[in-house]
Amino acid sequence: MSAKGLSINLATVREQWNLREAVEACRRHGISMIDPWRDQVAKMGLEESARIIRDNGMRVTGYCRGGFFPAPDASGRAAAIDGNKRALDEAAAIGAECLVLVVGGLPQGSRDIAAARQMVADGIDACRDHARAVGVPLAIEPLHPMYAADRACVNTLGQALDICDALGPDVGIVIDVYHLWWDPDFESQIARAGRDKRILAHHICDWLVPTKDLLLDRGMMGDGVIDLRQIRALIEAAGYTGPQEVEILSTDWWKRPGDEVLAACIERFREYC
Amino acid sequence: MSAKGLSINLATVREQWNLREAVEACRRHGISMIDPWRDQVAKMGLEESARIIRDNGMRVTGYCRGGFFPAPDASGRAAAIDGNKRALDEAAAIGAECLVLVVGGLPQGSRDIAAARQMVADGIDACRDHARAVGVPLAIEPLHPMYAADRACVNTLGQALDICDALGPDVGIVIDVYHLWWDPDFESQIARAGRDKRILAHHICDWLVPTKDLLLDRGMMGDGVIDLRQIRALIEAAGYTGPQEVEILSTDWWKRPGDEVLAACIERFREYC
Repeated sequence: MSAKGLSINLATVREQWNLREAVEACRRHGISMIDPWRDQVAKMGLEESARIIRDNGMRVTGYCRGGFFPAPDASGRAAAIDGNKRALDEAAAIGAECLVLVVGGLPQGSRDIAAARQMVADGIDACRDHARAVGVPLAIEPLHPMYAADRACVNTLGQALDICDALGPDVGIVIDVYHLWWDPDFESQIARAGRDKRILAHHICDWLVPTKDLLLDRGMMGDGVIDLRQIRALIEAAGYTGPQEVEILSTDWWKRPGDEVLAACIERFREYC
Repeated sequence: MSAKGLSINLATVREQWNLREAVEACRRHGISMIDPWRDQVAKMGLEESARIIRDNGMRVTGYCRGGFFPAPDASGRAAAIDGNKRALDEAAAIGAECLVLVVGGLPQGSRDIAAARQMVADGIDACRDHARAVGVPLAIEPLHPMYAADRACVNTLGQALDICDALGPDVGIVIDVYHLWWDPDFESQIARAGRDKRILAHHICDWLVPTKDLLLDRGMMGDGVIDLRQIRALIEAAGYTGPQEVEILSTDWWKRPGDEVLAACIERFREYC
């Protein structure tokens, strides 16, 4: 079965394999695109990771993750910016096409989400020169509103695009269907994102009913209620015809053999996406 | 301590007390406003519930809940509309100031959220004449996007107000901070809701970090990250100066003595709201 157009976010098999094992498994399954996480790269070593990726002919559709800009004080925010610049360096070293930003939520003790959002915009802005210098664009990933407090205070595509508009070049967005499928403005904002050439990645999985855990109960494509094929059509109509990247954080799927997970990703991708 | 301006949604003490016990407890604590749920009224009997409420001088700031309009077929949708008309009759019998609508999510087996949203608008429209006849307005409660699939496909204040605009009179909205606090458009949509005279109720509780359960881990005011006082100021600036209604669905608070819960509601209301 062809895996053309399919990328695997390596969080999907993080409990089964290290980076080398995951890359080799992808190649076995005919998958030639991945998105690794920083901790996976750190564990393998940056140079060794880059060599594994290169030797296996992998395209790197993104690097997870930068972000977490808000902090209670200026030194914390400066440290976050420095950390993001290092993440950009790593992304460049492994040839990643963007740095995925989970922007961060409220600083400890804060109830001021507007201030947190400003810290996010300022933090991204402070990384743009470095992003341009290393040739890796910053990809804001709006996260589901259930993560607004503790993971990402950017929660809709429209809001992410407003930040892009305010900042200018070297910044774009990730469309992850899990986070955005419910948004009544999703369709019009996808069109806007395409018009503005801001779409850097398209992540897929599914929303299960019931969802038993806020973080680790994402579904395999086809097991939930998201109309993946319609969203893909909207994104393609907006001009993005790049890869779809499977990202499933799931204690359920993490318990299964990695080869079974990859086979399911390919099969469901062909059937539902 | 004064409980002026404070209403208790009786779901907050549903595990501790029946309707009679809850009403008597509210009176003991100086609370003169409640919002009962249909199952609580059904268990006590409608007439007896109405008498308890009247004899204890309770103002009924809402009745929970109507809604759940989407269904796979026309007969299911017609049954939902009939059920909502009965709920309106009950609301009128107990003197409720609005019928709170949890509008419903996707019909079984559906991935078409746009169609579900149309079913919601159609269902509410079909209840408007009855609402006017019994003198109880329909109050659309936008629910947090994490409930879009299974409880309510209306997920932002702007979306609820768009439905109001399309339908006309006898329909308004509930602003529940738990569901809406994260919305980047919250402030502007509160102003719009006020301008349009659509605000029928203001529900409060708090968003905990971490939130351990999608449904039953709401926080007591002050224990989370919502800036309740700022939101209240926005709502009052929009022209709504009615009660704030505490609605806490929480296995934690349900384990505590009801009197402790009511005392905490009053204290936190004074301190944080």
